[in-house]
Amino acid sequence: MISVDYIINADYILPMDESLSIIKNGAIAVKGPSIVGVGAKDEIFKRYIASNIINGESKVVFPGLINTHTHAAMVYFRGIADDLPLKEWLENHIWPVENRWLSPEFITDAVELACVEMLKGGITTYNDMYFFEDAAARVTKKIGMRAVLGVGILDFPTKSASTSDEYFSNAEVFIKDWQGDSLIIPCIAPHALYTCSSETLKRVRKVADFMNVPIHIHLSETRWEVEEIKRRHRMSPVEYLEDIGFLDERVVAAHCVWLDDSEIEILAKRKVGISHCIESNLKLSSGIAPVVEMLKAGVKVSLGTDGAASNNDLNILSEMSTAAKVHKTYAEDPTALDAKTALLMATRWGAEVLGLGNITGSILEGKSADIVIANLKKPHLMPIYNIYSHIVYSMLSSDVEMVMVNGKIVINDGKLTTADESEILFKARMWNEKISTSLSCPQVPY
Amino acid sequence: MISVDYIINADYILPMDESLSIIKNGAIAVKGPSIVGVGAKDEIFKRYIASNIINGESKVVFPGLINTHTHAAMVYFRGIADDLPLKEWLENHIWPVENRWLSPEFITDAVELACVEMLKGGITTYNDMYFFEDAAARVTKKIGMRAVLGVGILDFPTKSASTSDEYFSNAEVFIKDWQGDSLIIPCIAPHALYTCSSETLKRVRKVADFMNVPIHIHLSETRWEVEEIKRRHRMSPVEYLEDIGFLDERVVAAHCVWLDDSEIEILAKRKVGISHCIESNLKLSSGIAPVVEMLKAGVKVSLGTDGAASNNDLNILSEMSTAAKVHKTYAEDPTALDAKTALLMATRWGAEVLGLGNITGSILEGKSADIVIANLKKPHLMPIYNIYSHIVYSMLSSDVEMVMVNGKIVINDGKLTTADESEILFKARMWNEKISTSLSCPQVPY
Repeated sequence: MISVDYIINADYILPMDESLSIIKNGAIAVKGPSIVGVGAKDEIFKRYIASNIINGESKVVFPGLINTHTHAAMVYFRGIADDLPLKEWLENHIWPVENRWLSPEFITDAVELACVEMLKGGITTYNDMYFFEDAAARVTKKIGMRAVLGVGILDFPTKSASTSDEYFSNAEVFIKDWQGDSLIIPCIAPHALYTCSSETLKRVRKVADFMNVPIHIHLSETRWEVEEIKRRHRMSPVEYLEDIGFLDERVVAAHCVWLDDSEIEILAKRKVGISHCIESNLKLSSGIAPVVEMLKAGVKVSLGTDGAASNNDLNILSEMSTAAKVHKTYAEDPTALDAKTALLMATRWGAEVLGLGNITGSILEGKSADIVIANLKKPHLMPIYNIYSHIVYSMLSSDVEMVMVNGKIVINDGKLTTADESEILFKARMWNEKISTSLSCPQVPY
Repeated sequence: MISVDYIINADYILPMDESLSIIKNGAIAVKGPSIVGVGAKDEIFKRYIASNIINGESKVVFPGLINTHTHAAMVYFRGIADDLPLKEWLENHIWPVENRWLSPEFITDAVELACVEMLKGGITTYNDMYFFEDAAARVTKKIGMRAVLGVGILDFPTKSASTSDEYFSNAEVFIKDWQGDSLIIPCIAPHALYTCSSETLKRVRKVADFMNVPIHIHLSETRWEVEEIKRRHRMSPVEYLEDIGFLDERVVAAHCVWLDDSEIEILAKRKVGISHCIESNLKLSSGIAPVVEMLKAGVKVSLGTDGAASNNDLNILSEMSTAAKVHKTYAEDPTALDAKTALLMATRWGAEVLGLGNITGSILEGKSADIVIANLKKPHLMPIYNIYSHIVYSMLSSDVEMVMVNGKIVINDGKLTTADESEILFKARMWNEKISTSLSCPQVPY
């Protein structure tokens, strides 16, 4: 008998392995930060002895969900300006409130709220692009969540930096400080092609190669953006990035709504990872990304929530449901993007897109214990014929009961274990009052 | 001081009245089945004295949601056949399991589960089309929910009837038995134009007029259906119904995905109520209904979940979110179908579509007390700038804490008060096992 820290058993375990197996009456052994055994309940209990046994009767276990594109701190701007076009929303509402409010203190409190929201919905890893990422890193680590955190780079001044050199020096310091951490993966995040010059993008590429970090960028989110890039460079956005040698598997490109076939081919060839943000794209009326075509071409597509100011939540369960439904209609094919594919995008493929394929995204021996347990004994989850479609089409984030990140239980019985949730909500309320009094835009009634 | 049964106070009350007012620190007085006062908290407490005070600190109150198209009992087929085209799904999967399993006992147990799911998500009224509706009526009334229940009429035999005369006689007996009930409104429900002859439809119309009941029908759900009707009658579906004198405000037409402009005009002129079922339509790849065009033409559009076999839940909060997002992109206009409109479709307009505009759908003096209280003190609902967008874009059905129907509390602190939920789940599990063992279709893994 090998002694371990936890044995988790459940009615159903979905390891999201290559064969997409379903282990009925399965169990998982966890030792330290790692999964050391996965299999039938009887076998696991024969091989391992655990200090803690987690009983998953009427429950399903699946890998921690991966949110591959967000601006976590924007939860503090949730619903601040709705039902507006992206450019107006961004330039007349979001950028002004950001310029007024962003600070390390704001980021600390806001990211803490975002982490709680994400963990409670079964998200164990998120990929961020924002400012003051050192504050985000500290609080994310304190809460016990895994994150790839990208220091935002722009060609104009913001609260975080005034000059290009300052942006890059911030990024380099952040990367040095956090590289090698068990939960935080530093990254560099040029905002977009329309806000970063060729020079900036090439410099990002050099820094990323030299420091061996991922690159996180917005790409072809709106039709306006694509036209603007074509006007400036006489090439489509993806062709342009290919031309300047920007693309490879280090790059995580968010949105990719407006792509032609030759761009899809380039993204496949260069193994660029895509973060598909269906709810944000729909809500901002940006368009619908050619996900089915990308998948057919072999492009790795994952799911992102985008920031809560354009969604308005950080909920990957709901992104799966929306993506699977919308792409069936968009492709005029009800077999397109089935439930299993949606869950793959939200787990294993998400991890691979972030370069974390060896660490998280599936429940396999040797991987980190990033695990979700959800309760199936709910009216909206009964009866059960197909566990995949249940998770994708019927499960709510409130069905998530336990979340483990890196072998540590961070949500237990639906409650945060690593900080005081009521204090986090209290801080949100204080910021809410401050920010509300500063608003003048008529879209916001109070 | 007038004595009442309840005073409900809350941070926000959204009466969904004509001016779409927001009452901050508001209260509602309820006496017997009715709302007798709505206003500022101070005023209500000055005018009324209550046996029970419901404290809504950090909470929002809105009218009970209206689900204008479902087949409630189909919750027992939730996820039984996914990711398939409507015709194959219906003819090769759903009709066979229905023929095998439907009975008054099945309907009683399944509808009970459906009512619990709907009430827990803030739905207080549903509009049904199915079989053995007497069983559905009894259990719905027992649970304490409001429903318009339509006896399904088809031109071929099912478990419920063998001949056309038997279908009609079932319907007439059901209508007589339930007309005048405080919660159950009987209705007649011809399935669709492709399953009911002109003769059947004309007979339905006569019965409905004579007995003064609503008519509930599927209309133009798929492209196939529209082509089939054009082939049979050389008219589009709506033109054909107009031609046989079928249309007026008594009719609730579900789906209406494939309409041309002249059909929209007829629906507006005849004041036909529409049930838009966006999630079911997306999932079955049926297409996207021209909701923005219908609203512009003055057609009253409400929201329906359809059955849980094609959705896979009975969740109007999520239908609002999906509808508001999808139509922004479909209309290429991010201001299309804003949060307020979505909530109107799910409340007041839903009630009007069902002919219940005087009874439910808004929080006004004299209306029935069909009321939802939801908790805002959740990570995914903080901070708050716009309460409408919060309900539509961020709220989960699990945020619903209290639900009152006709002045009676049916969900309290998130728990059913009118029956034993664990027993309802146990019955679902028993049926699950029986139905599973009878399945042979390869889409269902177990």
